[in-house]
Amino acid sequence: MKNGHLFQHIPAELPEEISESLLTAGNVRIERIVSKGHRSASDFWYDQQQNEWVVLLKGEAGLRFEQDELPIHLTPGMYVNIPAHARHRVEWTSASEETVWLAVFY
Amino acid sequence: MKNGHLFQHIPAELPEEISESLLTAGNVRIERIVSKGHRSASDFWYDQQQNEWVVLLKGEAGLRFEQDELPIHLTPGMYVNIPAHARHRVEWTSASEETVWLAVFY
Repeated sequence: MKNGHLFQHIPAELPEEISESLLTAGNVRIERIVSKGHRSASDFWYDQQQNEWVVLLKGEAGLRFEQDELPIHLTPGMYVNIPAHARHRVEWTSASEETVWLAVFY
Repeated sequence: MKNGHLFQHIPAELPEEISESLLTAGNVRIERIVSKGHRSASDFWYDQQQNEWVVLLKGEAGLRFEQDELPIHLTPGMYVNIPAHARHRVEWTSASEETVWLAVFY
């Protein structure tokens, strides 16, 4: 789908985190991710081939880089650039509302 | 700046629309655009070399493609993909609050 709405079409129940590709073109991919209380598995670290620019648009989350002792507390509007292979994990997301992320992989 | 906040650091007065590059890498550029009552000049049409994926995150705007009779009324969360050379213009943006756009050129 080329046009759409980031805050609509969210299922009432979210047993799993949802990732949807909104656009793919060449080496660029734009994804919407919706979490609700989800977090990375214990001791799991993302170690991605691509760079990721991500903004949190709704909800709240704790994003931790392996090199840092504490997670970054993300609230709506905050964006972070995650270079390829910068190991990171989602420590927590809000359990009381959906957390909507927009990620640009490049 | 690699990390930041889309809804902060907005000047109190916006005599001109503001476009800031948040990230540039290869053929990808991510921009924040802040408008307040701004619109494209009469009879001006954007005709861009690059594709643009744009989402409105705050405020309201009317985005018109030349091929369409009426603008699309964008409210927060709505995104539109604008292929290269798809002629378009901003017919209006809210005069009462800032309109914040996030654009990914690719």
